Amino acid sequence: MSAVWATVLAADVCLSLAIDGILVHGRAFITQLDVAMFSERINRLQGSLVREILAVANQPDMISFAGGLPAPEAMPKLDFNGLPDNLSQYGPSEGEAWLREAIAAEMSKNGVPAKAENILVLTGSQQGLDLAAKLFVDEGTPVLVEAPTFLAAVQCFSFFGAKFVEVGLTPQGIDVDELERKLETEKPRFAYLIPSFQNPSGVCYDEATRARVAALFDKHNVVLLEDEPYRELVYDKCDRDTICGRLKSAPWIHFGTFSKTAIPGLRVAYLACDSRLMPHLYKLKQAADLHTNRQGQWAMHKLLTSAEYPAHIAKLREFYHQKRDLMAQALDKHFHDLADWTIPPGGLFFWLKLKANVDSYDLLKPALERKVAFMPGKPFYANPRVSNEMRLNFSHASPDKIEEGVRILAEVVRAHI
Amino acid sequence: MSAVWATVLAADVCLSLAIDGILVHGRAFITQLDVAMFSERINRLQGSLVREILAVANQPDMISFAGGLPAPEAMPKLDFNGLPDNLSQYGPSEGEAWLREAIAAEMSKNGVPAKAENILVLTGSQQGLDLAAKLFVDEGTPVLVEAPTFLAAVQCFSFFGAKFVEVGLTPQGIDVDELERKLETEKPRFAYLIPSFQNPSGVCYDEATRARVAALFDKHNVVLLEDEPYRELVYDKCDRDTICGRLKSAPWIHFGTFSKTAIPGLRVAYLACDSRLMPHLYKLKQAADLHTNRQGQWAMHKLLTSAEYPAHIAKLREFYHQKRDLMAQALDKHFHDLADWTIPPGGLFFWLKLKANVDSYDLLKPALERKVAFMPGKPFYANPRVSNEMRLNFSHASPDKIEEGVRILAEVVRAHI
Repeated sequence: MSAVWATVLAADVCLSLAIDGILVHGRAFITQLDVAMFSERINRLQGSLVREILAVANQPDMISFAGGLPAPEAMPKLDFNGLPDNLSQYGPSEGEAWLREAIAAEMSKNGVPAKAENILVLTGSQQGLDLAAKLFVDEGTPVLVEAPTFLAAVQCFSFFGAKFVEVGLTPQGIDVDELERKLETEKPRFAYLIPSFQNPSGVCYDEATRARVAALFDKHNVVLLEDEPYRELVYDKCDRDTICGRLKSAPWIHFGTFSKTAIPGLRVAYLACDSRLMPHLYKLKQAADLHTNRQGQWAMHKLLTSAEYPAHIAKLREFYHQKRDLMAQALDKHFHDLADWTIPPGGLFFWLKLKANVDSYDLLKPALERKVAFMPGKPFYANPRVSNEMRLNFSHASPDKIEEGVRILAEVVRAHI
Repeated sequence: MSAVWATVLAADVCLSLAIDGILVHGRAFITQLDVAMFSERINRLQGSLVREILAVANQPDMISFAGGLPAPEAMPKLDFNGLPDNLSQYGPSEGEAWLREAIAAEMSKNGVPAKAENILVLTGSQQGLDLAAKLFVDEGTPVLVEAPTFLAAVQCFSFFGAKFVEVGLTPQGIDVDELERKLETEKPRFAYLIPSFQNPSGVCYDEATRARVAALFDKHNVVLLEDEPYRELVYDKCDRDTICGRLKSAPWIHFGTFSKTAIPGLRVAYLACDSRLMPHLYKLKQAADLHTNRQGQWAMHKLLTSAEYPAHIAKLREFYHQKRDLMAQALDKHFHDLADWTIPPGGLFFWLKLKANVDSYDLLKPALERKVAFMPGKPFYANPRVSNEMRLNFSHASPDKIEEGVRILAEVVRAHI
C-alpha cells in the first residue's frame, strides 16, 4: 500500500488526500500559523475532491470512474509546426483575435449571439468560474444552482462567500416551478446552470424548459451563467439550443472549453458574454494572469479550423457513444436491482441513485480498496446533504475495464447494504 | 489619427484606453446595469494602465518606453520538438515534477531554501499576486508596500480591499527605520517587496538592508512576499541574495518568472514558498485554473535545462546592459538639467525625478502626440499622490530609437515647464 493510499484510507470526512505529501505537511504546520494571518475567506477554501481522488485514481492499477478525464486515445495530435515567433511576446488579455473570431463563428452556429468582441479566451474554464465569482459574489450573496451541480463551481462561489439557493432537476431539466418561486423569494444575484448533459446528472433540458427558463431570467433580470463543457459530446438526439441565445434582456455569460473535445493540458477555454459584462470580465482576466498562453491558443486555433476537426468530433462522439452503451449494459447487468438511472444523451457521466438508503460516501473507501474510483453524490450538492447517489464517468476507463469496474462496484454496494 | 488614439487623447485622469472598443461600449452600457448586480469589490476594479498604454504604444510608429516588454530579438527560440503526447491530458495543479525540480535547483543557487515541494508553477507571475491577495487580503487589511511599487500588485491587492501602508526607498533599498516603525504601528498582514532592481525605481537593496529587513520580519512575524522578476537581469555588481533565504521564522513567498528572461507568451512562472503556506496556495491555484499549460511547462523546462541556457542569459545581460548604457548617455545629453536619476544596476527601467514640480501625468498626452510612450509616476504609488517622476523602459526600443525617444521626451518636458 503506497503512502498516498495510506493517507486516503486514514482520511476523515473531508477526504483531504495527500498530493506529494503537501497536505500532510500542511496540516501539521497549519496549527503553527495563526489563522489571523489569513483572509477570512481562507476558512472557506476547499480542495477539489475530484482532483484529490484523481491523484489516487491515476494509479495504473486503478479503474477510475471518478474524474471527467477525456480518453487519451481520443485526443487529437498536437502540432506546433509553423508556430510564429511573434507569439513569444506578451499578448492581448482578451485572447488572440483569430481564435476569438473562430470561437464566435462556432458560438453563432450554436445559437449564442456572439461576435469576436464578446469572446474572452480563458486559461481553462475553471478560470471562468473564478472571474464570475469575483464579479458577482460577496459574503452572503445568494447564488442559484441546480441540485446537484458541478462541485468545482460550488467551491469557487462558496470561497467568495456565496449563500446557495438550490433548485432540483427533473428529467426535462431544472424544475421550472421551483426556479420561478426561488427567483422571486430568494432574489439570487445570478444562476449557474448546466443545461446540456448536466454535470453530474446527465440531464439535458428540453426545448420547453429552455424557453421557460429564458423567459424567467428576462422577467427577473437575473444574470445567467450557462456552462456547457459537454455540449459537443452528444450521442442521442436532444435539444441543445443555448438558453443565453434566447434571452432578450437578462445579462449572460456562456462558458465553453476545448478540454473535453481536444487537449485539456493546453488550458485553453473561453467565455462568450453580454457586451455589458465584458469590460469587467476583461479587467478581471487581466488581473488574474494577464492573458492565456499564446502558443496553446495558436495550436488550438490550428486544430479548430483544420479540415479534420469536424471528423475528429464525429469520431469522438462515436467513441464515447460506444463507451456509454458499454457502461449502460454493465449497469443493466450488475446494478438493475441496486440503483435507478437514466441513460445520458450526452456528456461523460451516469448518475446512479441507489435504491438503498445509504450514504454513497461510505462506499468510497471500500471501492478504492478494490481499486475502483467513483464520485459519491454528496459533494455535488451546494448545501450539504447525505446522498445515496454516485457519479460514474465512462470516458476514461478502457472498454474492458468498464464492465469489470461496474461489476466490482456492484459487489461493493451489495456488501455494504 | 486612429480610433484608439482618439480615445487616449479624450481620456480623463483614469486614462481608460479602449482596446478593440470594448471599454467604450462597456462605459456606455455600464449605466444600464445596476451596480447592485455586482460584488462590492467591483467598485475597486481597475484596468492595468501599463497594458492600456501598451495598446497604444504597440503601434509601429511609436517609441515605447512604457511597458516592461523584453526585446523580441533577445528571446530564445521556442522548440516543441519531442513534446510528449501524454501532456495532452489534465496535469497536476502544483506543476510538472521535472519543472519544479529544475526551478528548486535554480532557487537554491539563489539562496532560497526551496525543494521541489516548495514550488508552485504559475500561469504568469501576475497569478501569484492574485493568489496572494486571495490568501491574505480582506476589506481593510493593512498591506505594506514600497513607495513607489509595482502598479499591478497595487491593483490586485486593492481589488480585494487592501489598505496600503507605504514605506519609502533610499538608494540602499527600503527605508529600514520607517519599515520598523510601520511594522510596529500599522501591523500589516504582509509586505510586498521587490528587493532586486525594484520596479519602478531600479533600486537594489544592499547587503545590510537585506539583513535588517529579514530580522525585522522575523521579529514581527510578518509574511514577506518577495517579488523578483528582474533578478537575472543584472549589469553591475550588486547584492542579490534573497531576503526569503535569510528568514528564520517569518512565513514567506518568493515570486519568479521566465517572462523577462525567456518567453512571456508562454505564461509560465512560479512561486517558491514556506511549507506552511503551500497547502493554501496549492488549493488557490487549483481553484484559479486547475493547472498551468503543460506544453509551455515542457518547452520552458527544455530551455531552462539546455546547455545553451546559461549562454542565453549571459547574452541577454550584455544586450540589455548596452541598452541601459545607451539610455544613460541619452539621458545625460538631454535630461541633465531636467531630472535626477541613478543608473539602475539591473532590471529594465530608469526612474527619473523631474527637477520641476510638475505632474508627470500631464506629460503623457503631449508625449503620445509626439509618438513617445512612457509611464508617469502617479500609478506606482499605492496611495494616490502627485508625482513628478517618470519610468522609462530601455529593453524594448531599438538602440537608435532610444536616443531619439529620449530627445523627444526632453523636448516635451521642456515645452511643458
